[in-house]
Amino acid sequence: MKASRFFIGTLKEAPADAEIVSHKLMVRAGMIRRIAGGIYNYLPIGLRSIRKVEQIVREEMNRAGAIELLMPAVQPAELWQESGRWEQYGPELLRFKDRKQSDFVMGPTHEEVVTDIARGQIKSYRQLPVNFYQVQTKFRDEIRPRFGVMRGREFMMKDAYSFDKDVEGLKLSYQKMYDAYVRIFTRLGLQFRAVAADNGSIGGSGSHEFHVIAETGEDDIAYCPTSDFAANVEAAEALPLIAQRGAPTQALTKTPTPGAAKCEAVAELLGIPLESTIKSIILATDNEGAEPTIWLLMLRGDHDLNEIKVGKLEGLSGFRFATEAEIVEWFGTPPGYLGPLGTKKPVKVIADRTVANMSDFVVGTNEVDFHTTGVNWGRDLPEPVVADIRNVKKGDPSPDGKGVIDICRGIEVGHVFQLGTKYSEAMNATFLAENGKPAPMQMGCYGIGVTRILGAAIEQNFDEKGIIWPESIAPFQVVVCPMGMDRSELVREHAERVYNELLEAGVDVILDDRGERPGVMFADWELIGVPHRLVIGERGLKDGKIEYQGRRDTEATLLAADEAAQTVAQKIRAALAV
Amino acid sequence: MKASRFFIGTLKEAPADAEIVSHKLMVRAGMIRRIAGGIYNYLPIGLRSIRKVEQIVREEMNRAGAIELLMPAVQPAELWQESGRWEQYGPELLRFKDRKQSDFVMGPTHEEVVTDIARGQIKSYRQLPVNFYQVQTKFRDEIRPRFGVMRGREFMMKDAYSFDKDVEGLKLSYQKMYDAYVRIFTRLGLQFRAVAADNGSIGGSGSHEFHVIAETGEDDIAYCPTSDFAANVEAAEALPLIAQRGAPTQALTKTPTPGAAKCEAVAELLGIPLESTIKSIILATDNEGAEPTIWLLMLRGDHDLNEIKVGKLEGLSGFRFATEAEIVEWFGTPPGYLGPLGTKKPVKVIADRTVANMSDFVVGTNEVDFHTTGVNWGRDLPEPVVADIRNVKKGDPSPDGKGVIDICRGIEVGHVFQLGTKYSEAMNATFLAENGKPAPMQMGCYGIGVTRILGAAIEQNFDEKGIIWPESIAPFQVVVCPMGMDRSELVREHAERVYNELLEAGVDVILDDRGERPGVMFADWELIGVPHRLVIGERGLKDGKIEYQGRRDTEATLLAADEAAQTVAQKIRAALAV
Repeated sequence: MKASRFFIGTLKEAPADAEIVSHKLMVRAGMIRRIAGGIYNYLPIGLRSIRKVEQIVREEMNRAGAIELLMPAVQPAELWQESGRWEQYGPELLRFKDRKQSDFVMGPTHEEVVTDIARGQIKSYRQLPVNFYQVQTKFRDEIRPRFGVMRGREFMMKDAYSFDKDVEGLKLSYQKMYDAYVRIFTRLGLQFRAVAADNGSIGGSGSHEFHVIAETGEDDIAYCPTSDFAANVEAAEALPLIAQRGAPTQALTKTPTPGAAKCEAVAELLGIPLESTIKSIILATDNEGAEPTIWLLMLRGDHDLNEIKVGKLEGLSGFRFATEAEIVEWFGTPPGYLGPLGTKKPVKVIADRTVANMSDFVVGTNEVDFHTTGVNWGRDLPEPVVADIRNVKKGDPSPDGKGVIDICRGIEVGHVFQLGTKYSEAMNATFLAENGKPAPMQMGCYGIGVTRILGAAIEQNFDEKGIIWPESIAPFQVVVCPMGMDRSELVREHAERVYNELLEAGVDVILDDRGERPGVMFADWELIGVPHRLVIGERGLKDGKIEYQGRRDTEATLLAADEAAQTVAQKIRAALAV
Repeated sequence: MKASRFFIGTLKEAPADAEIVSHKLMVRAGMIRRIAGGIYNYLPIGLRSIRKVEQIVREEMNRAGAIELLMPAVQPAELWQESGRWEQYGPELLRFKDRKQSDFVMGPTHEEVVTDIARGQIKSYRQLPVNFYQVQTKFRDEIRPRFGVMRGREFMMKDAYSFDKDVEGLKLSYQKMYDAYVRIFTRLGLQFRAVAADNGSIGGSGSHEFHVIAETGEDDIAYCPTSDFAANVEAAEALPLIAQRGAPTQALTKTPTPGAAKCEAVAELLGIPLESTIKSIILATDNEGAEPTIWLLMLRGDHDLNEIKVGKLEGLSGFRFATEAEIVEWFGTPPGYLGPLGTKKPVKVIADRTVANMSDFVVGTNEVDFHTTGVNWGRDLPEPVVADIRNVKKGDPSPDGKGVIDICRGIEVGHVFQLGTKYSEAMNATFLAENGKPAPMQMGCYGIGVTRILGAAIEQNFDEKGIIWPESIAPFQVVVCPMGMDRSELVREHAERVYNELLEAGVDVILDDRGERPGVMFADWELIGVPHRLVIGERGLKDGKIEYQGRRDTEATLLAADEAAQTVAQKIRAALAV
């Protein structure tokens, strides 16, 4: 591409509404242009990167045996009423009426439509498994669209839906997609983690999120730098930090701790480590026609409760925090200084796995300004119910036993999900199984945020000059900048030659023949983030040299003029080889 | 592609709502599947053809220097209010409110959005010309969606918009697009015509429609088989059919023609050719505060009035047909038997170009059951105002003087249009001209109905067995059908070898390894319309032969087994060479 035949629309200033770096840089680089809240034009430079993401996604989806089709953006309400989501989905689902007053939605996702296709087209187990995917424009009416393409309203997604005859098939289809996603994000040149996600309300099925690692990410991820383990902090298993419980060495002692209701204050006051204290958290579950059950959950002083894990424990589904009145009734004292010893009415005690192996620990004593030290299981308290009820922390052992946990932040760019029969049962998508009987199809769904990937890639790769694209999705891989092309025939000749050599080597190159000053040229291409730059000037050419600078390099290096194109092409091939 | 890894969903029966052959065949071939009125899923086979159309369109747009971007489907009402189309556009424009009760539209076209981009990004004449295009999903809320993808509500379009600094530039940009469209439709392998279109209300600017020729088309096109001339019948110039007026040979005679009010009846009654009779059409134009002007338009008995041409004549803009009361008042007789001789009140007479050169003709005499024969200009009637006011007919001379007109039917698949400053003025899209002053950009718009092309291609190319695709946009170019692949190792080996040879030759081939019976295989691929078929069976292989049949061939021919792939690849290359 020659810049004179292309459209470059860089801006000096970022828009006032841009809060994060990727949003600012995409607007300044002329990749996107806002038309309404969360709705963007993809300008020529932006579209080039989108197409490259799309292409890699398509290649890997096809390689994994998925079959591309294209479903419409506008979907009739009937399908959403069948699945039940017409009622369940909130105002993010854009609903409207057509000229005949029929209800429609702008598709935020396509489970209903693809299930409708499957029930129409698939009759027999012989047609299974099948995996349909599309790259398509979606709409979600976000209450607060922001962050550019990271949380837009209209955006581009790759969504795939697998159909299997049984759960084993679903697991295979899921694994194929998982593997394809690993290949996709690897080829995209991004640092990422496949993260075991909490399944929320759709229990039992497997689900992974794919996160691009970036400090500006919205999600906390627990991962093990020395293994593949990664999970949302909320879902990561917390192992006991104490392998075996020690024998009691202290006597049970009621100790004054005036004004020290929190563990940190108790530890400081008594001059003991925070790791010797216990926090007691009081929950309640309601019982129809009877008084509630009150639960006391014991966590080490430096640990935090994980409510999602708690909600999955037997009897604790739908729990709530106990009210102050309930605490007074069950413990005989207001919140603060609570503990498992000597409650007024019986409570159910659950100890975190680490707490269960502690000895000589400190608990509140259900009396204001007093704690009890030297508490030991068995001797002072009955053996507790033990469960994993806390968030993992940096330094915890990794659940796979292969190292210790670190915490990073990530941007979710992909999601694979075992749906099971949620939609096929609601919408009666059955097939004739080998036994001759109809059975609901086992479904999986697999999404990649195509436009979001651009933002995530930038959040991971930028500096004060602008974007730094991986070679795979850079709008151009190389820019050739001739110095004074209009004045120097020598410069023009070499610029054209190098440009053509790069084209022939299959490199996506742009020749900046706009006639701009070097400062403007360099600033534009650094902002746009082209990963490789060749500067062709008379001075260098006299010595047979062309100046090369990688986008992350702090200074230029000189290449032999007649080898420059091949050298750069080789760098790019090396970067793309994964 | 191997059929076992693809999704083929052919149907025996066409849906009840399918009225035209392309709709029936696309559903039966498993290309599309209806989800709501005028809204379709593009199933894998259909999407393959769409992508091929897209690819050809992109290549030619890029070659013509247009630059791809992507605009959103959802557009804020403000832009449409600025252009005035918020009020002007009818209910085809789907309007809705988002969750914050702001007005939006689903874009049926993108003039407003692209003009907004241009006014934001283009400041100087140095940035012009520029031509932005996209391939994008549009929505038009048709009152009666029908004909499958031919008149859908959600559909895919390529739309391009050129911006120039002056009218000369616009004409150049327009010509480039015109030429690109000729290349596109030629490469698509379709019989088409570029048709001079009537500009409707946007006067003065140039416009052409590109029509795929098909008997089932909705538009009548006048064209010259021996030249490039083509125009909508409504816009085609009608030359005089008589080169020079003959001298009078008959006396003016009032002749009884009882019950013969129509020209056909008069001709039959008097035993004269229809071409000697004149029909008089009475129009009116209103004058504020005064009585209307009454016009008498004279057409040869076998010609039809062209109201669009009439509406462009001086004084006739906004004409209407005269009422019966007006006819009685001006002619002294009710409709029927009307003519220019002896009217009761003065009327303005306009003669069609052919009529102006007639002699000894027959007109109504403003008396029931009487005509006047032997009428001649000059002698009996004053010389008339002459104008082209009729539709062209088959056999008329072509306006370019290079042959005679024929009439065919066409399906509009593309449109190029010189918009001028309609949008740039309404939306204040100006640039700084070379003289330092702001000037509105000169715009052109250029559309291609990507999904519609599929329907049009089928309307032009089908038989009783199904679709017959041109090689350029066939979902697959060749199908390899092995006979008894499961039973015969020989067949399997050769099928795989031929398949791989075709792949290596760059041919888009599908190997039907589904294990279906020959009858099912052949019927499926004939319905789907794959243009070339190779049948590999044990009997043929024993003689070193493979059976080839082109989709239009009535019988198969035998090819040497080791040359079959190259022979077919060569046929395809030849078909694609344009």
